[in-house]
Amino acid sequence: MSVRAAVMPGPGRPIRLQTFSDPECGPGEALLETLASEVCGTDVHLWHGRLAGVPYPIIPGHVSVGRVREMRGISTDVMGHALSVGDVVTFLDVFGTCYRCFQCQVARQPNRCPSRRVYGITSPLSEGLMGGWSEVIHLRPGVHLLRVPESVPYRRLIGGGCGLFTGFAAVERSDLEMGSTVLVQGTGPVGLSAMAFAHLRGAGRVLAIGDPEDRLALASLLGADQTFSLAATSREERREAVLELTSGRGADVVIEAAGQPSAVEEGLKLLRDGGTYVVAGHYTDTGGVELNPHSELNRKHVELRGQWGTDLRHLVGAIRMLERWGDALPFERVIGREYGLDEVEEALRDVEALRVTKALVVPGVRSVDGPPSSD
Amino acid sequence: MSVRAAVMPGPGRPIRLQTFSDPECGPGEALLETLASEVCGTDVHLWHGRLAGVPYPIIPGHVSVGRVREMRGISTDVMGHALSVGDVVTFLDVFGTCYRCFQCQVARQPNRCPSRRVYGITSPLSEGLMGGWSEVIHLRPGVHLLRVPESVPYRRLIGGGCGLFTGFAAVERSDLEMGSTVLVQGTGPVGLSAMAFAHLRGAGRVLAIGDPEDRLALASLLGADQTFSLAATSREERREAVLELTSGRGADVVIEAAGQPSAVEEGLKLLRDGGTYVVAGHYTDTGGVELNPHSELNRKHVELRGQWGTDLRHLVGAIRMLERWGDALPFERVIGREYGLDEVEEALRDVEALRVTKALVVPGVRSVDGPPSSD
Amino acid sequence: MSVRAAVMPGPGRPIRLQTFSDPECGPGEALLETLASEVCGTDVHLWHGRLAGVPYPIIPGHVSVGRVREMRGISTDVMGHALSVGDVVTFLDVFGTCYRCFQCQVARQPNRCPSRRVYGITSPLSEGLMGGWSEVIHLRPGVHLLRVPESVPYRRLIGGGCGLFTGFAAVERSDLEMGSTVLVQGTGPVGLSAMAFAHLRGAGRVLAIGDPEDRLALASLLGADQTFSLAATSREERREAVLELTSGRGADVVIEAAGQPSAVEEGLKLLRDGGTYVVAGHYTDTGGVELNPHSELNRKHVELRGQWGTDLRHLVGAIRMLERWGDALPFERVIGREYGLDEVEEALRDVEALRVTKALVVPGVRSVDGPPSSD
Amino acid sequence: MSVRAAVMPGPGRPIRLQTFSDPECGPGEALLETLASEVCGTDVHLWHGRLAGVPYPIIPGHVSVGRVREMRGISTDVMGHALSVGDVVTFLDVFGTCYRCFQCQVARQPNRCPSRRVYGITSPLSEGLMGGWSEVIHLRPGVHLLRVPESVPYRRLIGGGCGLFTGFAAVERSDLEMGSTVLVQGTGPVGLSAMAFAHLRGAGRVLAIGDPEDRLALASLLGADQTFSLAATSREERREAVLELTSGRGADVVIEAAGQPSAVEEGLKLLRDGGTYVVAGHYTDTGGVELNPHSELNRKHVELRGQWGTDLRHLVGAIRMLERWGDALPFERVIGREYGLDEVEEALRDVEALRVTKALVVPGVRSVDGPPSSD
Repeated sequence: MSVRAAVMPGPGRPIRLQTFSDPECGPGEALLETLASEVCGTDVHLWHGRLAGVPYPIIPGHVSVGRVREMRGISTDVMGHALSVGDVVTFLDVFGTCYRCFQCQVARQPNRCPSRRVYGITSPLSEGLMGGWSEVIHLRPGVHLLRVPESVPYRRLIGGGCGLFTGFAAVERSDLEMGSTVLVQGTGPVGLSAMAFAHLRGAGRVLAIGDPEDRLALASLLGADQTFSLAATSREERREAVLELTSGRGADVVIEAAGQPSAVEEGLKLLRDGGTYVVAGHYTDTGGVELNPHSELNRKHVELRGQWGTDLRHLVGAIRMLERWGDALPFERVIGREYGLDEVEEALRDVEALRVTKALVVPGVRSVDGPPSSD
Repeated sequence: MSVRAAVMPGPGRPIRLQTFSDPECGPGEALLETLASEVCGTDVHLWHGRLAGVPYPIIPGHVSVGRVREMRGISTDVMGHALSVGDVVTFLDVFGTCYRCFQCQVARQPNRCPSRRVYGITSPLSEGLMGGWSEVIHLRPGVHLLRVPESVPYRRLIGGGCGLFTGFAAVERSDLEMGSTVLVQGTGPVGLSAMAFAHLRGAGRVLAIGDPEDRLALASLLGADQTFSLAATSREERREAVLELTSGRGADVVIEAAGQPSAVEEGLKLLRDGGTYVVAGHYTDTGGVELNPHSELNRKHVELRGQWGTDLRHLVGAIRMLERWGDALPFERVIGREYGLDEVEEALRDVEALRVTKALVVPGVRSVDGPPSSD
Repeated sequence: MSVRAAVMPGPGRPIRLQTFSDPECGPGEALLETLASEVCGTDVHLWHGRLAGVPYPIIPGHVSVGRVREMRGISTDVMGHALSVGDVVTFLDVFGTCYRCFQCQVARQPNRCPSRRVYGITSPLSEGLMGGWSEVIHLRPGVHLLRVPESVPYRRLIGGGCGLFTGFAAVERSDLEMGSTVLVQGTGPVGLSAMAFAHLRGAGRVLAIGDPEDRLALASLLGADQTFSLAATSREERREAVLELTSGRGADVVIEAAGQPSAVEEGLKLLRDGGTYVVAGHYTDTGGVELNPHSELNRKHVELRGQWGTDLRHLVGAIRMLERWGDALPFERVIGREYGLDEVEEALRDVEALRVTKALVVPGVRSVDGPPSSD
Repeated sequence: MSVRAAVMPGPGRPIRLQTFSDPECGPGEALLETLASEVCGTDVHLWHGRLAGVPYPIIPGHVSVGRVREMRGISTDVMGHALSVGDVVTFLDVFGTCYRCFQCQVARQPNRCPSRRVYGITSPLSEGLMGGWSEVIHLRPGVHLLRVPESVPYRRLIGGGCGLFTGFAAVERSDLEMGSTVLVQGTGPVGLSAMAFAHLRGAGRVLAIGDPEDRLALASLLGADQTFSLAATSREERREAVLELTSGRGADVVIEAAGQPSAVEEGLKLLRDGGTYVVAGHYTDTGGVELNPHSELNRKHVELRGQWGTDLRHLVGAIRMLERWGDALPFERVIGREYGLDEVEEALRDVEALRVTKALVVPGVRSVDGPPSSD
């Protein structure tokens, strides 16, 4: 038997479909038959060579869902749920955390451990099928598997994709108080997830800024009480609207999921004095922004927090929320289209042009237009 | 014109209906026409003389809703919302906080300010109509008014009553993490509120222990995923059930709203290592309980937090949540019966016997059986 | 009898010495005979008209120490310590906090209450002797007095001045972990205080960046383990030194007390991933700075906190520390010179030119060169 | 060559001196020549069989200092400091933390990881020389080494012993605010360390309760401002004294390091409303205590935290503090006597009878009476 995978050979070069021999499952390892992976903004950046330290060639696709084909020495997930061959699972794309370094042991932020590596990004092809754009994913010892509950359609989970967990982490990091006004900048996968989780974690009001129209509709669907189109409103109009909604104060919490430096400038101006600003959308360097330390940081008594990466607990929590809230978290609706392994270049282009919000890579599928029906 | 009010002359003595002359509205003051007040467990304790320092005679009824009849020098509430004569409002029952003492200024917990007083509890009749069991409530300078939004039926708010804010405060104090398992002990007004807000503040699962059956049904209605009847289950059965649901660990957060010392003992045993236990149900002394400092505190690495009283921000947040979630927070369903001013003794007895969960005192009404229709 | 005070008539205009009739002490008020007040950087800004909303003419001098000449209705301070006529006291320069608004009640940050006013800054002369550059200071009802313990020479307290409390607040806001490396940017009064309190609040190492030489010597005296001269080192040299001291990671905590936008840029680069950056030096607008949201905020997983103003608890804590640590906190050494009321223009010029670090205004004194002897 | 070690064969049985063949140093391992280990209260409990799950026979001695004789594949410690053969080091006695379970990954409290094991306690003799009462200590792969700085005499570190880190952890967990009053219950090694670190982490006042006299003297030496002898004062006298010192409020923070259930009852009564109580002394079950949930937990608005175990960061921080503060942290003065390997039974009896506060086990030494001179 053989396995097909889409390989990204290097920046700017065509993606190629390759065939590999079936991997062997070593001790502590698992093999997954890929049900679906995704194309996210980071994959576009990878293709354009905007990330440093990527060991091309790679198989992209960091967050994925699959069915367990084989496991050796694994019987439960972190929550203690039994795992069996045939189960639908996902896994933490991050691996290799050392749990011995300063960041892991003293600072207690393994998300900044220098040993961390990521499936689909910093895993060279030479090490195996370590990315989701492949019919089979090879999980190395130590990779954290999580069972997807039966009540959670896997398209709902992968429809959120990596943004699901990043948005969850951003909301967690905001420590928002029940009843407060949360503004999310950006209506891509991270922003949509941040809205959905802010909505279900006690926000009293969720506002969203983004574009285009279909994404604003998704924002409303997933929890935003009010949306502002970047194209249809001026910065001043948005500011007036936010101030009016908050009796002149500004939002209690602003979550940046836009990835544009100018969003940081605008976001701080929409935040109330003493509010919390979470920067969670800048996974790539898109340039600098001028801030005023007096008015935007010191006098504002701001709490500004960067949120980098996700940890296993974010996946655990997000999946638990999907399980509990069911159809109230319809992330499958974020999926714009499913692409076969031979269509990933098209997927990359569609994501870049914002033609789709979430592009699925489905190794066994060739071409299914439109949002798929629920699982 | 004259005002009727139900007066509690002292412990164990009959409540008497008295008539007073209409109060005058001084500068910084407001007069409310009472729409509804409540009978809560504390009122039963007051009647039995179980609270120290109560300046009988008093007009009970600490949390109430009313319509503004007159105001002098008040034009907005704390959120900046305009207030007008005729508006439906509620108010923080606590007043007199000094904002100058150690607790207010250094410890930053005005809920422990020794100058605090409470409408309906520590407000002697000699000072005026400072309780809700009265046709008119006299709000002194400095009492915080809050507008009840039009989309929130006032019976929904007062159906939650003081427990609504206490439960809100307990959930806030738990700092629960999204997706975690929250167990609430007690299905009275505080417990029901704690469930409802845990449910909408990111709990991954809400469990409830209580009785009788109608309260367990309310628990399910308001957010509990699973309920345990105290009468129908043994302590050991509850423990086994909670451990099974949590892969043997126990709940991440337990909120005590039962008011029984034995609940504290059981609650700690149902809490996972390193979990958070909020004690919010012991507003009266009902005796001691034996705990083991080794196994229940030290080795458990517990975070145990008492929650005393409520602050204005809890009312603000709770009302915001009622506004946002609408029919998903049907606290009007908690109302067992409405009582006229001449029926408050019956109300006290019904509350004590758990015949009703929330008893309303409606000054203008004589006798309306059964749960009232929504506003 | 009459009272002399130095009045600042408006931006850029000469300070004039004026004589006023002796004020009367109303109920809840106190009159202090000024022992010493100070000239801080904000006073220089006031003179140059760099602060908005200042109701000139004013009597400057926000933090002061005095002896109680008269009190009406005041008998203890916030800690419960008895207060008597003749006691040496200081007071919180901030007054008028409303404890009713959103910032006070919901956000719990009275330091952002819009009603706040400040002695010596936003107190117009028309309201009385509300500034420290006066032989007598008139404390209005509600102003918080604090007894200066007998073991604390008042020159030690006023030698720290307003910077003492601002630095204390900045350290509190940093939540520094015991044993961590703290870098303070700026060796003016705020920076020196931040070093001293970081030193005695568990820092494992305190680094300081500043100038000129005499201030670096004060930094060493007050707790800095190592100092870097801005003039004598390049930015790259400082970065190399900090990285070498921290095995390549950067400081765990950086406190900005420099007031220069460029310091914010440098500070973030000297901070380790996931470290905490407190911006506490930008009390005036000195322009903007360009930051990179990707590298300095998001990927760094930064915790950036503005610290605006001080509250009573900061004074309480700082005085408690002065009392406990005695000669280990020799802030009287920061005093460069004492100026009489007729010399405050000279004081302003000396502060602006960094010729003195802390300039004292001593109403009863004409001219005493050099650092004064201890009280 | 051969290695001598003191073996505890089982509860209540005589300690025996045994000779073993020299261990081999495997990959990722290290061998230490023991400079000193300790006898702590837990060792007494071990000897009496009061801990469950101990795999006798064992070599006791969990915290130790030694000189690196051999290392394979280890070159730096967690702080990035170079490690070489001949260096004086200590190590985290806890090992085997899985970093995969719910406690490690979701709850983020590896101190409750069920896979944790401890040198000298849960390390059976059959697995090797895994305890400090041995001439050589065998560090298995994954055990965390820490370099002891040259400026820290090793007797200073081991004089604090395991209590040094436990006390450090208790202070960290208290989150004490600068200037606050901290009361420590217990003057054994944990209590003494808690005082010392509270003292240097910003406490405004440190109070100690304990006995006998020599320990109270050590308390004063290490940072307590005032001590109370359990024998010479009544509970009521202590309460009056604490209330008087705090203007009737009680201590802001109380740290329990006494190990007696009655201490918990007293401690809560000495704590102010809304204060923080850390339970850190109950490493063995010594029975229950009756608490009143109304007055001691709920109305007190208490923050009660158990602190179980220590993590690597606590060692890192404590050593950093020893390095910085030098002779101001003279833990070598806590050492009552040094015992040879053939004298450990006497050491156990001396510790149990409180004849010595810290008993050192020095494999190469036979009998040195009195406090040793500094290194």
